Amino acid sequence: MANSRFEYVRKYELDDSVLMNTWIVVRVDGRGFSRFVSEHHFEKPNDIRGIHAMNFAAAQVMKEFQADMTLAYGHSDEYSFVIHRSSSLFSRRSSKLVSTVVSCFASGFVFYWNRCFGADQPLLYPPVFDARVVCYPTDENLKDYLSWRQADCHINNLYNTCFWYLVQKGGRTNVEAEAELKTTVSADKNELLFSKFQVNYNNIEPIFRKGTILVGHAPDGEAKNSEHPVPVQARDSSNASEDSKSSLVHDVENEALNGFLADHKILKLHRDLISQDFWEQFGQTVLGKK
Amino acid sequence: MANSRFEYVRKYELDDSVLMNTWIVVRVDGRGFSRFVSEHHFEKPNDIRGIHAMNFAAAQVMKEFQADMTLAYGHSDEYSFVIHRSSSLFSRRSSKLVSTVVSCFASGFVFYWNRCFGADQPLLYPPVFDARVVCYPTDENLKDYLSWRQADCHINNLYNTCFWYLVQKGGRTNVEAEAELKTTVSADKNELLFSKFQVNYNNIEPIFRKGTILVGHAPDGEAKNSEHPVPVQARDSSNASEDSKSSLVHDVENEALNGFLADHKILKLHRDLISQDFWEQFGQTVLGKK
Amino acid sequence: MANSRFEYVRKYELDDSVLMNTWIVVRVDGRGFSRFVSEHHFEKPNDIRGIHAMNFAAAQVMKEFQADMTLAYGHSDEYSFVIHRSSSLFSRRSSKLVSTVVSCFASGFVFYWNRCFGADQPLLYPPVFDARVVCYPTDENLKDYLSWRQADCHINNLYNTCFWYLVQKGGRTNVEAEAELKTTVSADKNELLFSKFQVNYNNIEPIFRKGTILVGHAPDGEAKNSEHPVPVQARDSSNASEDSKSSLVHDVENEALNGFLADHKILKLHRDLISQDFWEQFGQTVLGKK
Amino acid sequence: MANSRFEYVRKYELDDSVLMNTWIVVRVDGRGFSRFVSEHHFEKPNDIRGIHAMNFAAAQVMKEFQADMTLAYGHSDEYSFVIHRSSSLFSRRSSKLVSTVVSCFASGFVFYWNRCFGADQPLLYPPVFDARVVCYPTDENLKDYLSWRQADCHINNLYNTCFWYLVQKGGRTNVEAEAELKTTVSADKNELLFSKFQVNYNNIEPIFRKGTILVGHAPDGEAKNSEHPVPVQARDSSNASEDSKSSLVHDVENEALNGFLADHKILKLHRDLISQDFWEQFGQTVLGKK
Repeated sequence: MANSRFEYVRKYELDDSVLMNTWIVVRVDGRGFSRFVSEHHFEKPNDIRGIHAMNFAAAQVMKEFQADMTLAYGHSDEYSFVIHRSSSLFSRRSSKLVSTVVSCFASGFVFYWNRCFGADQPLLYPPVFDARVVCYPTDENLKDYLSWRQADCHINNLYNTCFWYLVQKGGRTNVEAEAELKTTVSADKNELLFSKFQVNYNNIEPIFRKGTILVGHAPDGEAKNSEHPVPVQARDSSNASEDSKSSLVHDVENEALNGFLADHKILKLHRDLISQDFWEQFGQTVLGKK
Repeated sequence: MANSRFEYVRKYELDDSVLMNTWIVVRVDGRGFSRFVSEHHFEKPNDIRGIHAMNFAAAQVMKEFQADMTLAYGHSDEYSFVIHRSSSLFSRRSSKLVSTVVSCFASGFVFYWNRCFGADQPLLYPPVFDARVVCYPTDENLKDYLSWRQADCHINNLYNTCFWYLVQKGGRTNVEAEAELKTTVSADKNELLFSKFQVNYNNIEPIFRKGTILVGHAPDGEAKNSEHPVPVQARDSSNASEDSKSSLVHDVENEALNGFLADHKILKLHRDLISQDFWEQFGQTVLGKK
Repeated sequence: MANSRFEYVRKYELDDSVLMNTWIVVRVDGRGFSRFVSEHHFEKPNDIRGIHAMNFAAAQVMKEFQADMTLAYGHSDEYSFVIHRSSSLFSRRSSKLVSTVVSCFASGFVFYWNRCFGADQPLLYPPVFDARVVCYPTDENLKDYLSWRQADCHINNLYNTCFWYLVQKGGRTNVEAEAELKTTVSADKNELLFSKFQVNYNNIEPIFRKGTILVGHAPDGEAKNSEHPVPVQARDSSNASEDSKSSLVHDVENEALNGFLADHKILKLHRDLISQDFWEQFGQTVLGKK
Repeated sequence: MANSRFEYVRKYELDDSVLMNTWIVVRVDGRGFSRFVSEHHFEKPNDIRGIHAMNFAAAQVMKEFQADMTLAYGHSDEYSFVIHRSSSLFSRRSSKLVSTVVSCFASGFVFYWNRCFGADQPLLYPPVFDARVVCYPTDENLKDYLSWRQADCHINNLYNTCFWYLVQKGGRTNVEAEAELKTTVSADKNELLFSKFQVNYNNIEPIFRKGTILVGHAPDGEAKNSEHPVPVQARDSSNASEDSKSSLVHDVENEALNGFLADHKILKLHRDLISQDFWEQFGQTVLGKK
């Protein structure tokens, strides 16, 4: 049985390569994650175990792509991966890039789930992610893209922090909390947290406020991945013992993840990347000629 | 902190919708699977457990896409998914389609691994798949595409069956087996199996010779998924007891998978789809107007 | 001076081939033609000289593309060219197809201008056209596309005929004529022409009501290009002598154009292509296997 | 007759916008120009009348696109047009850009033909051009693209100059001239011209050696378009009187073209753009922020 009679169908595949000498960003987004998060009883406003799983999956992608991928940034149910403008990986074919990144991410997320959630919470069904490719011609465009995502992280996390304090500690219903926050700006939200709950938003763990930056192939001189075995929320939870919800406290660091990152020379950071500081320190590593 | 200053970067995303009224095929391929198969000690020439895992992953994709996806076909480390020509899923955006299919597949493959490999063989690392989108304008083109993949399945499986009989039962080295098969055509290979190993190739399990067809939303009247708890290779393995390799015998059917398929009204078939017979029976279900 | 140092820039060109086995339509549209028509004093509602120039340009395109192009349809300032689904012209690269068609059309329009406008009206500046490529997977889609364009021709021409009768013979201002037609449907417009101006719309020249169809490589048995040296508007212009405008009467046929069409075996038709009649007669010629 | 039943076909048009913030180059190339040049009896190695026609057509394109188009460069039968990286013309849709540029060019070439060729040589048939779009992410890429085209101009013109001197003045057949030049490098060709024909290649008109650069919206302070009514080839044609071919001498400048350029504030240059000199003078005008 020859397949030659049918092989003409190969010619129907169209080339979807992206423009050379541009930064390639592949952004992965969870699909139906509000349901996923609810069915897996994620803690609100942030579940550090879920963040660990996302970071583990992202680290697996970084390991897979190695030198071609210089930075990743994630928060909530999304992760953005930056492929260097000089890369010729998969001849820059869009479908190859997007499918490899997202399948590696999904595969890693499921694979490392137990290392992050332990016996607390088994994975109930396979999660789905979608992904897209966007190209940026200039370094400035790329930095603005990453700033856009981190600004989004900030806006969402400040809102969610307020919302869940109002609900979990302030006794509001979800509808009441939403109404209370409707017209507030950032300053109002900071004030609300401080005056009502004695919480200084800037003292909340950076991993929640800033998201996670992964830098590949960081020079040896760079700071190691920080390790602070302080339980999450401990600082702000003076009355943790009275609060059944906040007694579910998990380490803000995950040893297995940190080991994996160290093995593959990937640096994990939770800091501002909108200001120039980050780029002064890591610009050469992330953006420099390959 | 407003993200409005950075939001312009959204405009850099280009539309990658595919042509309307064409059959959309998303083909998923394992990446680096010769290494994966070797590190996970897959049986040769076929490991029914691996096939179950692939089929489980594919069934998960079928469930996810429901009415938009009418057929899937897989063999070896690849799976093709057919999205109906009338579908407007994700506005037919290529990156959305390809990323959702492949992430669901990868996620499912890892999730169902233990249900297929049991305690025999833990998953050592997260596998990666790539995927591509190809469109076919006519029903004829689509059938030819599927025929091309099944012809490929046949050619590869006949070769691999001969190769591993020569190595496992014929005492050849890999190099010798390759040399022996180099100039053979199909008829020679059939003859070799029969004369040297008393194996009639046509008696080998259809799941190995024909691959797996999944049909969604099959009419109630259609045949149910066959269940035959006959151990694989049993028929041809008269001297199985002497062969340490072939004592690793697994059922050609997987109960968990069959239950999942039944729950989601997905029909699993291992039969020829190159001839008209298949299309006479399932043409309306697979190709008909939605 | 070697150009090798710079040649890398060639690699930045992306492949823009269109899907195989689909009908390729290239539609050319005049840019800024309301100004062009006004500055060149076109007669209203239709200027047969302008139509001849459009048809000449289209015939030049048909000649250039020969067997790959089976039909063209035009009216007003637009022309659609159909490239056969089996064509591999320019490897089906979109930019090659669109640029060649539109440059040939523009070039021809200017080149043949004098043959259509004679000494009446010199060309004042080079006209510009844009063009786009659209693919259609099925014969039905292609027929519907052409029907869409001819329905558009009908709607516009009926409106314009009423509008200019009201203005030229009914003494209305442009604003009054527009207001009078605002809420009318087709039946009202037919009635208006008949009751006010004794014009039966169906007696108006088919070239105005139906636009122009060009069929390449028509079988010898097919009807020849009709030739009727009847002046345009003559039939409906019983009082032509009183009307300074309608004394500018030009032949509905152009000898030079008809000669060109005959030389290149291109058939020119002004008839309905929405009903099945056209396709019964020309379906094989236009759509048949190449 | 409603066209609503058919209007669904509009949805089959795919978006072909190019990436934002990149330089858009549209390159126009003559199709079948070796035949065109031969049938229109162009002088060899360069026909200044043909160059004028190309430049006239290009100037028409520059006028049409105005502020969006900052530079054009042409030689032989090709012309490249640079659309500014910040342009949102036609929403950066590739087919719109390429079709408008090439139709305007073709239209202009035919329209201005007589102004360049006068009564010497009527246009025999409408010429055809194709065109493509290529995007360049950085200023460096764009400069390298233009350098690539000018290096090509140099290589071709040096070869052609030698070839036609050998044929026209050296009595060689075309085959002999080709053989004689086969293994030569640039230095050999310069030497051949000087030793055999007393021609210093660097004294040949810059318009032939460097091609033509058009700069739009040049600041008032910039040099005006040079005008030197010196007949082409005069300097090198000491024995012009003996040479029937070189008695066909035309001005290297065309008054009508220069008037058109002046009216539309377009600067015409014939100089090196590979070195930094050009960019130091015109970088701001061509590349600067819009």
